[in-house]
Formats: sequence, C-alpha cells, structure tokens
Amino acid sequence: MGIREYGYVVGTGKPGARNLITDVPGVKVGHCTIDNAQNQTGVTVVLPCEGLVYGKKPLAAVYTLNGYGKTMGSIQIQELGTLETPIALTNTLNVGRVADALVEYTCVQCEQAGVEMHSVNPVVGETNDSRINHIRHRAVGEAEVMEAISRADVIFAQGAVGAGAGTVCFGLKGGIGSSSRVFSFGGKQYTIGVLVQSNFGSLQDLSICGDPVGERIVHLRAGEARVAVSPQAEGTRNVMENRTSAREWAHADQDRGSIMIVLATDVPLDARQLRRVLKRAAVGLVRTGSYMGHGSGDVFLGFTNGNFMPDQEGEELTQIRCFPEGQINLLFRAASEAVQEAIYNSLVYADRRTGTDGRVYHSLREYLS
Amino acid sequence: MGIREYGYVVGTGKPGARNLITDVPGVKVGHCTIDNAQNQTGVTVVLPCEGLVYGKKPLAAVYTLNGYGKTMGSIQIQELGTLETPIALTNTLNVGRVADALVEYTCVQCEQAGVEMHSVNPVVGETNDSRINHIRHRAVGEAEVMEAISRADVIFAQGAVGAGAGTVCFGLKGGIGSSSRVFSFGGKQYTIGVLVQSNFGSLQDLSICGDPVGERIVHLRAGEARVAVSPQAEGTRNVMENRTSAREWAHADQDRGSIMIVLATDVPLDARQLRRVLKRAAVGLVRTGSYMGHGSGDVFLGFTNGNFMPDQEGEELTQIRCFPEGQINLLFRAASEAVQEAIYNSLVYADRRTGTDGRVYHSLREYLS
Amino acid sequence: MGIREYGYVVGTGKPGARNLITDVPGVKVGHCTIDNAQNQTGVTVVLPCEGLVYGKKPLAAVYTLNGYGKTMGSIQIQELGTLETPIALTNTLNVGRVADALVEYTCVQCEQAGVEMHSVNPVVGETNDSRINHIRHRAVGEAEVMEAISRADVIFAQGAVGAGAGTVCFGLKGGIGSSSRVFSFGGKQYTIGVLVQSNFGSLQDLSICGDPVGERIVHLRAGEARVAVSPQAEGTRNVMENRTSAREWAHADQDRGSIMIVLATDVPLDARQLRRVLKRAAVGLVRTGSYMGHGSGDVFLGFTNGNFMPDQEGEELTQIRCFPEGQINLLFRAASEAVQEAIYNSLVYADRRTGTDGRVYHSLREYLS
Amino acid sequence: MGIREYGYVVGTGKPGARNLITDVPGVKVGHCTIDNAQNQTGVTVVLPCEGLVYGKKPLAAVYTLNGYGKTMGSIQIQELGTLETPIALTNTLNVGRVADALVEYTCVQCEQAGVEMHSVNPVVGETNDSRINHIRHRAVGEAEVMEAISRADVIFAQGAVGAGAGTVCFGLKGGIGSSSRVFSFGGKQYTIGVLVQSNFGSLQDLSICGDPVGERIVHLRAGEARVAVSPQAEGTRNVMENRTSAREWAHADQDRGSIMIVLATDVPLDARQLRRVLKRAAVGLVRTGSYMGHGSGDVFLGFTNGNFMPDQEGEELTQIRCFPEGQINLLFRAASEAVQEAIYNSLVYADRRTGTDGRVYHSLREYLS
Repeated sequence: MGIREYGYVVGTGKPGARNLITDVPGVKVGHCTIDNAQNQTGVTVVLPCEGLVYGKKPLAAVYTLNGYGKTMGSIQIQELGTLETPIALTNTLNVGRVADALVEYTCVQCEQAGVEMHSVNPVVGETNDSRINHIRHRAVGEAEVMEAISRADVIFAQGAVGAGAGTVCFGLKGGIGSSSRVFSFGGKQYTIGVLVQSNFGSLQDLSICGDPVGERIVHLRAGEARVAVSPQAEGTRNVMENRTSAREWAHADQDRGSIMIVLATDVPLDARQLRRVLKRAAVGLVRTGSYMGHGSGDVFLGFTNGNFMPDQEGEELTQIRCFPEGQINLLFRAASEAVQEAIYNSLVYADRRTGTDGRVYHSLREYLS
Repeated sequence: MGIREYGYVVGTGKPGARNLITDVPGVKVGHCTIDNAQNQTGVTVVLPCEGLVYGKKPLAAVYTLNGYGKTMGSIQIQELGTLETPIALTNTLNVGRVADALVEYTCVQCEQAGVEMHSVNPVVGETNDSRINHIRHRAVGEAEVMEAISRADVIFAQGAVGAGAGTVCFGLKGGIGSSSRVFSFGGKQYTIGVLVQSNFGSLQDLSICGDPVGERIVHLRAGEARVAVSPQAEGTRNVMENRTSAREWAHADQDRGSIMIVLATDVPLDARQLRRVLKRAAVGLVRTGSYMGHGSGDVFLGFTNGNFMPDQEGEELTQIRCFPEGQINLLFRAASEAVQEAIYNSLVYADRRTGTDGRVYHSLREYLS
Repeated sequence: MGIREYGYVVGTGKPGARNLITDVPGVKVGHCTIDNAQNQTGVTVVLPCEGLVYGKKPLAAVYTLNGYGKTMGSIQIQELGTLETPIALTNTLNVGRVADALVEYTCVQCEQAGVEMHSVNPVVGETNDSRINHIRHRAVGEAEVMEAISRADVIFAQGAVGAGAGTVCFGLKGGIGSSSRVFSFGGKQYTIGVLVQSNFGSLQDLSICGDPVGERIVHLRAGEARVAVSPQAEGTRNVMENRTSAREWAHADQDRGSIMIVLATDVPLDARQLRRVLKRAAVGLVRTGSYMGHGSGDVFLGFTNGNFMPDQEGEELTQIRCFPEGQINLLFRAASEAVQEAIYNSLVYADRRTGTDGRVYHSLREYLS
Repeated sequence: MGIREYGYVVGTGKPGARNLITDVPGVKVGHCTIDNAQNQTGVTVVLPCEGLVYGKKPLAAVYTLNGYGKTMGSIQIQELGTLETPIALTNTLNVGRVADALVEYTCVQCEQAGVEMHSVNPVVGETNDSRINHIRHRAVGEAEVMEAISRADVIFAQGAVGAGAGTVCFGLKGGIGSSSRVFSFGGKQYTIGVLVQSNFGSLQDLSICGDPVGERIVHLRAGEARVAVSPQAEGTRNVMENRTSAREWAHADQDRGSIMIVLATDVPLDARQLRRVLKRAAVGLVRTGSYMGHGSGDVFLGFTNGNFMPDQEGEELTQIRCFPEGQINLLFRAASEAVQEAIYNSLVYADRRTGTDGRVYHSLREYLS
C-alpha cells in the first residue's frame, strides 16, 4: 500500500498506471537484496531503455544538491549529457565494486551485440546504510549486480529491498520508493517517473502533505502527549511548543543520511532542460521535511528516453526534440510531486529493521491509521 | 506586525532583537520608494559593513537556484568570493541604471577615502514588477540610489517599499521582508539575517508553516466554500478536492515572478561554506510554497562580515576563520527559517496595490484573523 | 593588413571570405568610437542574426575562464541557453549605461514589431581601458550604443576602434580583432567566427604562432640585444637567458587586463555543445601567451544562429539539430584557431596610443617586418 | 634524464631539489606496475601528507577541463574542499576496483589509528590505456594498490610505470611525469609540485617550449623531409606547408586520450584559491600542444597540506591561512610551468612499447638529440 492508500494525496497531478518509475515506457527496475545475520544491504538497478544502453545513449543529467556523497559517473554525464549504462544504487562503501560490475556487464553486452567498446562510464549512486548494515563488508559484488539486472521488470518491490534494505529515513526505516505522473501534451501521453533510495532526515521534520507527522511521532514516543496520529488531527502550531525537548530526542538521527533520486521520463528534452526538471526534485524533497542537512549527500540523476545521442559515423546532423520552455512548469510540478510521493512510499512500504547497535527502526506504517 | 504576531512561528530558532537582517552587527538597509501616478517601484540597498566596502571586501557568495534573471555582479563574486559595493535591489529593467549609480557612488567613496579604484563590481539584484509598475520607465536613477544609501539604517520598513513597491507574491501584494536568527557558539553570539524582495508564486501554493492558506483564500474568493481563514481550521486534504478549478483561477499568477534573497551574517565562514549556507535559502523558499517556477529567477546573494579579504600589498598571509563543518547544520536551519519568515513578513507588511491593468493585489493581512 | 599578411598563419583551417566574424551568415558588427581629449573608449555590438533577436532567441552559451570581470547577462544565458539582445562590449565602468541602452533598444524594437516584452536580458561584456581612457567618465551612453547598432554591417574596422579604442594587450596597443574558419560538413558549408576585445597579457609572454615575439621586443627595447624581429630568427632557448630582467621591465603590464571573446557560428548545436566549443577559445588564448592572469577577467560568449528557441504558444515540440559529438573536434580546432588569429589581428590592426599617464602603447606593426 | 637535460627549459621559475611533486614536504608517490604478456598497466598513488589522510583532511579542489572521463570522488571534493584518501591513478576500466582498494586501505588505517569511520570518499583518476594494455582485464586489484602505497617515497620513477605503463601521448609513449617550482614568500620557502598521467594529443601538435617537435617527427617519419630534429632548426612556418598530409597520418592518434593532472602544494590556500591555481594547469597543458580534444577527459586534482580541515568536535573555529589574492599570479605561473614540464618529462622518461595491435609507440628520446 502506497501513501495514497493512507489518505495522503500529493499534489494534483495524475499518477501513471502503476504509480512507479516504470510507467515510463522502456524503463525497468531490478533489486538484489542481501538480508542475513551480517548484512542488510543490496543493489537496485534502473534500466533506462530497451536494448543496449551503451549503443543508444539516452540523454541524461545530474544535479548535486549537496555534494557530501560518492556518486560515480557524474563528470561525464555533465560533459556529454548521455547515459552509457544502467543506473545502479547501493551502499556508500560498495560503489567501487558495483561500478566494476557495471563495467563487466557492459563489456559482455557490447561483445554480444558486436559493439566495440574501450571505455564506459558506469553510473552508481549510494547512500550510507551503516546504521543497519555492516557497511565495511561491502557485501554487494558482481553476482548481486548481475542478479538485479536480470530481474529487472516493470513491476518491482518498494521499501526495505535492494539498495534500500538498510537505509534509515526520518529516523524510521527508509528504503526504495517510487511514483509517477502522467499528462498529455500535443495529443500525446508523457510520463515522469521517480525512484528514490531514502536515507536522510530527522524524525521531527517529517511532514506528510503539510501534516507534521514526525512531530506527532516524536511526542507519542516521548510519552509527552497521547496525540492520535492521523492527518486531520490538530494544527501545526500547538505541537511546536515542546519541540525543544523533542529535538534533543531526535538528535541522533541528524546528519548521517543522504538521498539518491532517479528521475526518468519519455518527454523529449535536451540535457539543459532535463537538468532544469531534475533540479525540481529538490522541491519534493524539501516538502517531506528535508533541509538539505550537511551530511546528506543529495544527488539527483535523470534521463529521458525521448531523445538519444548515439555515437555516429558519417556527416549527418542529429535531430533532438525539445519541450517548449515556456510550458516547462508542467514538468516541474510533475517532477516535484513524484519525488515527494516516492519518498513517502519508500517509508510506508519499508518494514521495520533492527540496527547494528540494537536500535529498532520502525516502519511509518506503525504510526499511520 | 510580522507574521509572528498572527500566530505563525517559523521553526524553533530565536530571532534577533529586531527580527531584521540588521540584527547582524554592521549591516544597514535603506529604501527609496517611487510611488506616483506612473510608477510603483524603487530601490533597496543593503550595506554589508561599516566603512568603505570596496576597501574591506567582506566575503561573499552567490547561488543561482533558477537563472531566469538579470542579477549583475555574480561572476566576480564566484571567482573572488568578495563584495566590493553595497547590494542594491530594484526592478528588472532598472538594473543598468542602478549599477551605474553604484559605480558612481563607489568612485566618490574611494576618492574621499583616498583609495585608488579603476574597477569595481556593482552588485544589483532584481525582480519584475511590471504588473503594478510601468517598468519600461526605468524610474530608478542615480538620485534614488544615493537617497536609499543615505537613509540606510538598522531600522527600516518592510512591505511595499523600495524595491518591493511594485512586486506581487503568491498573487497577493509582495515586497520587502526580513527576519533573523541568533545563537551562541563557543561563548559568542552570532546572527544570520535575511532580506527578501518577494515577487513569485501562485496563490494556491501559499503555505504558512504548513497551513495551506493560499488554498483557503482561493476558495474564499471563488465563493466555492465559506472556509474560515485561520490556521487551525481543517486539514490539508479536504481542501484539495476542488483544486482543479482553483488552479484555473490562479493561473494568471503563474510564472512571472522571481525572488531575490540577501543573506547576511557575522559568522566566520570561507566563501565555500558561505555558499553552502546560502543554498539553504531554497529550503525556506520551498516551504512557503514555491516550486521554483520557470519564470521565477531565484537568485541568492550572501555575505559575511566575519571575514574580510582586502587587497593586500606585501607578503603576509591572510587569516580566515571557518566554522566547524560538522556543526554547520546549525547555520543551515537558521538560514532556512529566516528566509521562510522573511517571505511571510514581506507579505504581511505589504499594503494592497492596484495593478497597471486595474487588478487589485490584496494584502495577506486582509485574510489573516 | 591582418597577421597573415605578415607571414604568420595560424593553424591549418581555412578562413572565410572576409576572415571576420561576419562570415557567419546573418552576423553584423558595428562600432561607436569615442576619441577626444578626455576619452579613448567606445562600444562594439555584435548582431547575432537577421531580424528581432528577442523574438528569435538564437541558442547561446557563456564560459567564464577567469571570473574577475563584470560581464552582464550570464546567469540567464546559462539557464535558458538563448540570447535576447545583441551583444555589446564596452569599458568596465560603462556596463550599466550600455545595458540600459540595450534595454531601451529592445523595448523600441519590440514595440515596432508588435511583440509584447516585459523583461529582457541585456548582454554586455567589458574590459578595463583605464590605462588609456578616463574610465570614470563612463563616456558611452545610449546615443553611442544606438549609433553602433545602426552602423552594424558585415564589413567593420579592427584595432583601436569601438570597445577596443583604449585597450592594451601584451603591453602593446590592443583592440578589436576578428577571424573566421569555414569548412564543409555533410555537403554544406559552415562557419565559426570570432571577435575579441583584447586587453590582457605581459609583453614578454607574447607568442605569435610559437614565435616568442614578445621576448624579442622586450630585449629590443631594453637595448640588451639587437635582435631582428622576424619570425625566422633564432630559437626559443637563447632568448630566455636574460628573461629575469626582462620580466622586471614588463612587470607594469601584468594583471590589469581582461579579454572578451565572442564566438559566432551557424553550425547547429545545442547549448551544451556550444559551450564545449566556446571553451576551446581558451586554447587560442593561451597560445598567444596568456596564462589566465589573476586580474584578467576572461569571459567568453557564444551563439549559434543555426538553432533558435523562440517563446512558443501551443503544444508543439521544438526541433533542434545537433552536431555529431564524435566529430566535434573539427569545431574545437576551428574555434581555437579563429580565437588565436583574432587576438593577433587585434594587435596588428591597432594604432599606437598614448596613455593617461603619458606612456606610449605601441602598435605591434612597428615591430613586424 | 628530464626534458631539461635535453636543453629545453620551461619558463623562468626554479624547480625544487628533485624537480618532483615530492618536493612538496610531506608528499610521497608510489607505483605498482603490471608488465606481462597480457597487460601493461598499473596504479600510481600520491600521498598528500604525513599520517592519516582521513583524520587530517588537507584542503583539496578539482577542476574538470573536459569531463569525458570517469574520475571518482569529485563531487565531495567540490562540496567540502577536502581530501580523505591518497589519490590513486589507474586505467579507465579499473577505477571501481582501485576505489574499492582505497576504501579497504582507509578502513584498516582508521581501525589501526582508532578513528571511527563509516564513510570515505576514495579519489581515483584514470586515463584509457587500451592501445597498449588489454584494458578489459582490469588487472589492477587490491594487492597492487596496497603495494603502490607501501612503496610510496619521495623518490619515484617516471615514464612507463604505474598508471603510466600503457599510456600514449602525442602518438608517442606517454606515462607518469613530474616537476616542481619553488619560491620564497614572506621569508618562507614554498613549493608547487605536479604529477601527470599523460595519454592525450596528436603527434603533429606536440610543441616543446614553442618548438614544433611533433611536426618534425611527423615529417621525418613520413620521409617527406630529412629535417634534423633539434630545437634550433627551422622556424615555425616552413614546416606548415605540408601539414595536411601529416594530419592524415596522425589522424589515428586523435581523440582517444586523456590527462590526469595532480597538483600538490604547501602554500596555504582556501579551497577557492586552490581551484584557481589548479585551473592554470590548463595553460601548461595547452602549451604542450593540447587543444582539449573531445575524447580527452582532462581532469585536474589539487591539494594543499598547508591547510587542514579535520572533523571537529566542540565549538572552536578553524583557522585557515590564505595567500594574498593580488599576488596569486606567482602561483599561477608556477603551476603552469610545472604542468608543462611534467608532461614533457612523462614523454622523455617513457620507454617505447608495442601496442596490442603491434603498432610501436616510440619514446620521445629517440627523436631528441
């Protein structure tokens, strides 16, 4: 059940058929989850289009909201505006191994397709799941990446799976979340889809569609008040009085997170426009309660499979279609809404987990009526 | 009366003595307002420190959230990380004239101080006040800039004054707003102060501390519902049902705005840190309801008079003090809160004005109980 | 006579018919020069295409190599990737007045064309001509800008004219220079054209096609050696021995310059590609002897009239053509060569001038055989 | 023998005692070279300071001249301006494995030092050595990285070693090169040191101190002329006539290279200043003949161990010393010269190698008298 089933509707836009990033035609997602005595971690891959990504090169963009992170592949995306591999998400210390697996995967894929390849830009995002996972094990290897790719589908699980197995968000169990928005333009239907790996925020700051749910949970836990946790209850101001103590309580959650946001679309955009749309992920993120904390490496990766820039022999110009700039607010609102809802979904789908130090990270579901 | 007097408290931080940008020691603000049959516009200047700015060069930063704007002076600030003139805000088409006045002002100041000066980087921000002002007149000239500077003081008016005389924000009358946060660190008191020129947003999106005030005003106006406009009333979701029609109504307000945010502090930061703090202005902005619309040139200018980098003869190294990076969240929260509150203040202080096409831009005060 | 007529051939590319930026179809250049007892300054305008720039919006890019400069209009170019006005170049302190004139010009142009206009992004570059010009006079006003525009043509003067009237380059008289490269691709002929306002460098560093001409002039002047100044004479190393004293001599020229480089083309590029090409202006610049000195605000502005992104009503996508990325080296070499040659041309066309302090800035021609 | 021993003196600055990056106190360099039937590749590490890098965090900067590359770690350096690990260089497809090794290394180091560590930003640069090396083997693993680190010393080999074992530069054998400049300032001696992994350029473009050596080699090889290859011979222009055919010849060398430049210093700089100095590496690079070709991922990494920003508990401000900005040209010239000389050294020290396709990549030494 997504956040909508709990009565919270983000914005006014219309979600796609599955309310998933895979509503964008051609996009698939796969996980490999490691869930054992030692490790709660994994890898999630987003396939941007049908066929060989390296050969097609869908247009891509990256936006770094807070660069306290280790995402790999950003330099080339900014220079060339294209994607050469699936996007993989994992834990912070596992980026090297996962990148190496993406290189291997692309080598094999190119070989099979008879495409010459001497260089490839693996794109790997990460957040730090060390509160729940023994991150130093770097448990995600080539086998796990290959499995995630091979399982990639239009239907996929959300919550404590794949790269979200060990993440913590607003002091609750975070994970993988997704959402989408569809709209018609010029007689054609287009989609913006989002997938997040949520691992940021302090509980007190969690706001669901303007409802200060985090505050209420803090008070509930602190036994300071028997506030019924439902969106209709109470206004914003009353809750604030006792915030200072609440803040102390929540302090432990500060500053060790990050969020990776992957935005997919089939809207034809050039790299500059795509980056503008991608930047609006910050709006959805802030609306959930983030203030872009110091330790939160907030990195956004976006692509469109509505335009490709393959390597070309010969002397022909490439045709690219752009969205009319003056109407781009349509995409800004859609991106912002889908990100906000994807973050809520990451929380509501995630099951509780116990941290390496014994602390329990509850599911948001436990607090929603 | 600021937004606090209406019962809305932004965040948990403590405002300074005046809850103004001028709570930062050394900072002064002056306006010159043009209010006649033809023009509703003006200029607002922020003096960053005592004495000759050109000679002292307080550290500075700029962050462009949405570059659909005409702010002048950003290139040099990014390269050298210093400020050489007061910051002036005005209307879009007046940037050239105001920049020229700042050049003249600095020439005279340097001459009087016996400081040689062949080059100076005037910093001028702007938003487009053409809904209320006949912007093509470019009514702000050298005399107005000089007047604003000469009137600069620690006490200054907010609302429809100076560069805010003709601005529109969330479909209501916008203007100049300010707020501050103080805190102690290492036994010393520091301040972050903010001044905004608000001119962005659609009414439907206005949110005050999580309270969807904009929605309520839209419905009130549309006669669709007799919703009492008070922060306690109703929850978020009920209001949303009829949003589509409301949206149509509010459409005219979309996409012609911008916001300039000036952040001042006396916290010792290097230019990189200052830019990180400045970036969190986006958090405060988004929390008021902005989604960084296409047409909204959102540009932030920041400075600290806690560090200076004057031109130096001789072979001595310059000492700079930095804030411990691991505790910078304190500044992030303060900046975010002060920006959010400054925007609300710009609305609540602004008196209603009539646009050039006869449309009335109401004061937010008319809707607050 | 350009530098070619003196036997120096930059690179292997083929110049256009006029070896001017105006070899790019649709591009025109006009000057207004102020040459009187008080001032040696002016304004140079580059018209990027036929018709109303504001209505057409050719694609544009900006690249800041060294941001110690005051160029206006860069923020919006980076965000939207388009140009709305002609590009004007002038002296540093005159940017405000010239920007204001461009605003007035565009207001009038739009009015005449029946195009609604509430906001416009004037693009003005500058270098500091205070060694020859009394820069504080800010002698370039609206009349001068209008005159430069009205005189714009495919044929225009180089050297100590327009914005180059008072500039100094490599300790010699600098000014306006231009060059172009043409090539065929896919059966069509394309052009890259460049115009520079040269005002940077120390004499000792001037290198013409690898020939250390600056060193030779320094020695000649210092009377240390009777080196015949011709490109064939001597090698690189002999000249270097006495360099330390030469350096002292040339010290006065260090660090007060800047260069503006305008690159025009009709090659269809998106904004990202255009910026890549534009960046290679740095190659041409360095090859003349620049080391991007601290005080040299090196700012590059580029546009292509091979693609336009006008404001659009309706729901139609815009078609943009891109150059095959894998063959973009063709454009990199052309841009690099044209910039290098344009700088040499700015020197060789400039007549000597006397500085405000009586010092004589010689023409490079005086030293070429 | 470095390039100086062949009579070419780059600039006028004074090299340090070893003319190596390790002239900067505290800096060490180590290689591990893989040289067998299958692979000619390796890894080179630069240790930025004595002791635990993770605990000290020397200030750092990154500058991407051409982002067609896969360098890892850039995002965090840009955000926080510090270095947490040694810098490792390797081949393109090996970045993941080497990053993983740096993570392991830092985990162990921190454990031994009793420093808590949950997250670390491994910094790995790369160029593509696939002309000489079977790059798909990704032959550099954890053992090789550990060996390179353990061997790190102030004395180290240049040429076809470590990460330079398989690189090609200007069509000749490239590799690792180094150089330094020392100067006194305020009574203290400072050093700027550079290490490059050279793998870019077309033979025709190679210029040594203004001497078109590449042209001469092209002609020599083509048998078009028996030009004696010595720096004094001939001027620039004669050689150019037959360039078109030469160009064809050299075409195969175009566009598959890259260069990594590591700049070290003990000059106290803040991150902004350091990045300005680092950017001047482009000057040295261009002067060797680069035109920043499309395929050349030119990425520069810099650090100073003259300032540190360790994680800090408590409420104390950090003191940073900055270099007087107005005298920064001293550093610009030093950086530019050291880069240029380091590139020449990488060529002159490299022994010839045979490519995977049988083609021989000669040593520059074979052509110097």
